[in-house]
Amino acid sequence: MKEKILEHLKKGHEYISGDEIASRLGISRQGLWKHIQELKDSGYDIVAVPHLGYRLESSPDRLSGMEVSHGLNTKFIARKIHYFDYLSSTMDFAMQLGMDSAPCGTVVIAESQTKGRGRLGRSWFSPKYKGIYFSLILRPEIAPSASPILTLLNAVSICESVKNICGLDARIKWPNDVFVNGRKIAGILTEINAEMDKINFVVIGIGLNVNNDKRSLVAQATSLKEQLGHSLSRVALFQELLRRIEDNYILMGKEGSGPIIEKWRNFNLTLGGRIKVHFQDRYIEGQAIGIDSDGSLLIRKDAGLVQKIFSGDILHLR
Amino acid sequence: MKEKILEHLKKGHEYISGDEIASRLGISRQGLWKHIQELKDSGYDIVAVPHLGYRLESSPDRLSGMEVSHGLNTKFIARKIHYFDYLSSTMDFAMQLGMDSAPCGTVVIAESQTKGRGRLGRSWFSPKYKGIYFSLILRPEIAPSASPILTLLNAVSICESVKNICGLDARIKWPNDVFVNGRKIAGILTEINAEMDKINFVVIGIGLNVNNDKRSLVAQATSLKEQLGHSLSRVALFQELLRRIEDNYILMGKEGSGPIIEKWRNFNLTLGGRIKVHFQDRYIEGQAIGIDSDGSLLIRKDAGLVQKIFSGDILHLR
Repeated sequence: MKEKILEHLKKGHEYISGDEIASRLGISRQGLWKHIQELKDSGYDIVAVPHLGYRLESSPDRLSGMEVSHGLNTKFIARKIHYFDYLSSTMDFAMQLGMDSAPCGTVVIAESQTKGRGRLGRSWFSPKYKGIYFSLILRPEIAPSASPILTLLNAVSICESVKNICGLDARIKWPNDVFVNGRKIAGILTEINAEMDKINFVVIGIGLNVNNDKRSLVAQATSLKEQLGHSLSRVALFQELLRRIEDNYILMGKEGSGPIIEKWRNFNLTLGGRIKVHFQDRYIEGQAIGIDSDGSLLIRKDAGLVQKIFSGDILHLR
Repeated sequence: MKEKILEHLKKGHEYISGDEIASRLGISRQGLWKHIQELKDSGYDIVAVPHLGYRLESSPDRLSGMEVSHGLNTKFIARKIHYFDYLSSTMDFAMQLGMDSAPCGTVVIAESQTKGRGRLGRSWFSPKYKGIYFSLILRPEIAPSASPILTLLNAVSICESVKNICGLDARIKWPNDVFVNGRKIAGILTEINAEMDKINFVVIGIGLNVNNDKRSLVAQATSLKEQLGHSLSRVALFQELLRRIEDNYILMGKEGSGPIIEKWRNFNLTLGGRIKVHFQDRYIEGQAIGIDSDGSLLIRKDAGLVQKIFSGDILHLR
């Protein structure tokens, strides 16, 4: 109901009478008043003037279903949004939803996380209302071994949306980090639930530093606010990101991984350079020479042998 | 408490006084009597004779934690057992437990399943008290791409335990079916929950036809009862299977996949023969020439090219 009330308030910048809203939605004036109070409590600045009615002065920069859905116009990405003020981990919640048959495109978003997760059990710092922390359930019809392409697809989508909304050049460090001016702005965690020959579902977790203050960031990290010199609307950026993900996902479904990898190359920070890859118990060093069709990294070692890397921590050497 | 009472009753075949059991366990005679009644209700044949005490005449062939744990002597496999009279699917329950940090070796067993699952969403018929239907949580320190070896490991363990307990030659049809005399006796379903470069956990589901009657089986299937001409103790077979799985898992941890694949070769039904592999939208045909170190099947196609297959439905051609 609150969503419907907001729809009416967002239609124009003029006052709209309470009677009109109430009768269109089939609720009482008192019921309407109660909902308006709750919206004001959630940060909506709604002015009420006798004989004129209500007017929406401003909306809070909250990543709620109401805000994110408004004008989103996607086909399946974020058609279903689970929004939380805080959550221990959007990944855990989304993996759970995936097992409970949540549809492809379902989004779990939290304004803050107490146990935000990064790759390999690392933590992701998620201060309230500063960044965008969400998990996305996808059900791609690809083999489990092809799933790394999804990490690339999401990295590309982040770069595109940062470019479109902020005008900044974001670059990808293989496989899952996004950098702006040499410092990390976003991380991607991909988890799969699969049989040997079929993906049941994939959960993509994205953490993106938006309005984080410089003093709250570690040395290697940055935020869009720090880069731009001013804060920006998380809602607008998030909507653009969701649209980019959907477009790229549809593109992959139609034309395979080729166009995604092509885009990835244009955003990449890793190809061509000399790198060192750390695994749990060893490392290899060489030249990053290419990306395979499944998203894995090809490294030419000093002896000339080419090795295929599905994932790992890489260090860019000079 | 019931487990402890059973331990006392199982110690010898003589009568044991109620006073003795009650005082050793620190419970009242009345409390003991109540537990004994509950055990009788679950199928334990316990005789009570005044002045002599209680004697256990027979135990039901139930796969309960009490029965399965008794004399099992494993290090980590089935140290924790979740037992159900019926469950929609042991796989779903175990995947859930895996996400809730259940330890490696945790077993979920159901006497019957309403939605028993096989590969690719197929159903597994699980009539009550007839077969062994369980899921096992493992946390192997191997790459996600190496996980097919776990299917082979469990197939080998099934063959070994069928041989040891029933004296029957069970054979493996790659990747996940076990056959006796040309008909299917068991299926294995492997599901993983993983990051791109790290397995969080694996759930192995095994369905094994033990005392199923011939008339309840489809034409291509058989049961150990049908093959032997008499029914057998599911508990004894299950315990042996759990021990074989543990031994093979420890072996793999120490020596890698080599010894498992070697055993697999000796039990195999697929290698050397001409086969046809069906995928979702196509098929390939050729000679099954080997198993790779990660458990995948190598097929030499008629044009001479060797293709590596991670999973699929295979048909043995003549």
